[in-house]
Amino acid sequence: MENFDFRIPTEVLFGKGQIEHLADAMRPYGDTVLLCYGGGSIRKNGVYDDIQRVLKGFTIVELSGIEPNPRISTVIRGRDLCRKNQVKIVLAAGGGSVLDCAKMVADCAVNDADPWEMVMNPALIHRALPVFTVLTLAATGSEMNNTAVISWPEKKLKKGCKSPYHYPVLSICDPSYTFSVSRRQTAAGSADIMSHIMENYFSRVEDAVIADELAEGLLRTVIQELPKALGDPHNYSARANLMWAGTLGISQITSAGKKGSWSCHPISHELSAFYDVNHGESLAIITPHWMRRILTPATVTRFDRFAEKVWNIQEEDPMKEAEMGIDALQAFFASCGLPSTLREIGIPDDSLAESMTDEAIRMKGFDSAFVNLSREDILGIIRDSL
Amino acid sequence: MENFDFRIPTEVLFGKGQIEHLADAMRPYGDTVLLCYGGGSIRKNGVYDDIQRVLKGFTIVELSGIEPNPRISTVIRGRDLCRKNQVKIVLAAGGGSVLDCAKMVADCAVNDADPWEMVMNPALIHRALPVFTVLTLAATGSEMNNTAVISWPEKKLKKGCKSPYHYPVLSICDPSYTFSVSRRQTAAGSADIMSHIMENYFSRVEDAVIADELAEGLLRTVIQELPKALGDPHNYSARANLMWAGTLGISQITSAGKKGSWSCHPISHELSAFYDVNHGESLAIITPHWMRRILTPATVTRFDRFAEKVWNIQEEDPMKEAEMGIDALQAFFASCGLPSTLREIGIPDDSLAESMTDEAIRMKGFDSAFVNLSREDILGIIRDSL
Repeated sequence: MENFDFRIPTEVLFGKGQIEHLADAMRPYGDTVLLCYGGGSIRKNGVYDDIQRVLKGFTIVELSGIEPNPRISTVIRGRDLCRKNQVKIVLAAGGGSVLDCAKMVADCAVNDADPWEMVMNPALIHRALPVFTVLTLAATGSEMNNTAVISWPEKKLKKGCKSPYHYPVLSICDPSYTFSVSRRQTAAGSADIMSHIMENYFSRVEDAVIADELAEGLLRTVIQELPKALGDPHNYSARANLMWAGTLGISQITSAGKKGSWSCHPISHELSAFYDVNHGESLAIITPHWMRRILTPATVTRFDRFAEKVWNIQEEDPMKEAEMGIDALQAFFASCGLPSTLREIGIPDDSLAESMTDEAIRMKGFDSAFVNLSREDILGIIRDSL
Repeated sequence: MENFDFRIPTEVLFGKGQIEHLADAMRPYGDTVLLCYGGGSIRKNGVYDDIQRVLKGFTIVELSGIEPNPRISTVIRGRDLCRKNQVKIVLAAGGGSVLDCAKMVADCAVNDADPWEMVMNPALIHRALPVFTVLTLAATGSEMNNTAVISWPEKKLKKGCKSPYHYPVLSICDPSYTFSVSRRQTAAGSADIMSHIMENYFSRVEDAVIADELAEGLLRTVIQELPKALGDPHNYSARANLMWAGTLGISQITSAGKKGSWSCHPISHELSAFYDVNHGESLAIITPHWMRRILTPATVTRFDRFAEKVWNIQEEDPMKEAEMGIDALQAFFASCGLPSTLREIGIPDDSLAESMTDEAIRMKGFDSAFVNLSREDILGIIRDSL
């Protein structure tokens, strides 16, 4: 098992009605709040009204219209609102995109460095406004982690920025706020959750027994609960287990003792930077193809474990068992209505892969991933996914 | 799933050599340290020397001789040392008993209330010195939780005291410090770990899917790794997985979304208060008898799950399958050299159970446990365990 530093500074208030505790938790930090949200779904699902009600007495400035794959230009808009209104607290109400944007706004409000330079070099972040979140989508785990993923579409860039200042102070995770999430977003969010778990699960460390056990348990949970949530969007128990799986799935719970870079997320980020596609959907499409490409006699043991423990498959021939596990994953995604080809989500060809520079590939750290991916491998995965 | 508040203020530095980071972490809090330890094992296993080396420049006052089932008189001795020497930091080096004593010393040093009154009523704890720990035994999970269990042997009292001030600031968990732990203590510590997990696992909440999955994963980990550690005490990987299982086993990871009181721990604490027995050994003895007593058609489903998921047992008759799971637990404890009767650990009869007052039983909260235990049930469990 690798050495690790386990530290979760975020408090999570989980469950129905927890928003009633929000004002008390925020008050010590000030009374002027930047409320960050997206395209307006929080006005329909009751979250906006709940926030206005519980934050009576606070001055609320609004940053609305945060897009999926949040943009650096939106971050700058939020930064300017904070500075103009002397905002003391950033409150994000939404899914991962809103939370990520809010984290970066909280940085930019109180640091002088150029916003995109901070995304590229988190060492420039020396302080941040306190961030609170009200989660409305089970997916990215941003509610309890240190990452913000920001895009600069004009330059075809999308980058994850990790900073100790990116842990929210407190996150309200009320599963009933996800009742109105569409089938499509519910499935895509779950594909993202599963990908986070699998990115750590497929690593070069073999003796982090606990991280592996917990990863398998979380994967089985999503596989069991997602169809329930799709069948009955108001199933509280299913929504609750998906939401908590999303939070833990990218926490240190599944990475403690493991090491190495991820594989599918960097490829997906590149796809999003070029085509602004849905993150979870792109992961559902490329993950099985990544698996087939790296399945060899050298990796078959881990894939067999994945097939047996996650999909309950028993087959004597190891290579066949491994393939059956990958088939099961692909079939599960399809059964949840997720797309299976990049063309379905608007990516017509592999020109993007051709345009990736050697430097871009090097920066993504594929050489420390479970299996080192070359330019040809990445190109092949994208072609296979078309 | 029940609502919960997930909050882990403690940072854990896990792995070989992490003690090198201790001084830097402590320095902001002051330079006068109370070093708490037990019977001197840290002088043999290298921990004492490592601490003296890395804390060069700090003034170190020593509280040694902390006993298993740490006593309130020892807490008072530590408090007086802190006050006399203007101690700013409490550093515990040892297992759960040392850590628990150190937490309570840190309270008493800076609060005026009577020490035992604070144990009984944690609301009297309004502040505490910062606590750091260097763990040398995988067992109680005290290194990342808010509990301190303190005894008053003259009054036959043993009580767990939970306070938000009881979270250590930072814990060094280096599995190689457990290489020298005896077979007996290794097995007893693991029985304690398994008991923590099972106390939450057997609860009235059935839809906390993730807590259950994680509990089963941690139990399987201990079942797999403990024999390896007993067979080869220097097996780093086995020691590491046991140590991390101990930390997570009593964390909010396995309780989030569950609810209810525990059953075997309160009985074990009563046994310890009267007879000063080894905590883990007493849990290994009574847990299977508790299980047999509460196994009924109303609880059989949970026991079947336990048998199937933890012990890989498949049997058609549900009651038989449940019993086979309990048998497997009992056989596992025996195979690890743990005692199977209370007489073996020095408890001659059930007179203790007779002397438990109704008030003592009421205070232990058995009425909100998985199955409500009456005085007769408790007496029966102790008799069956003799």
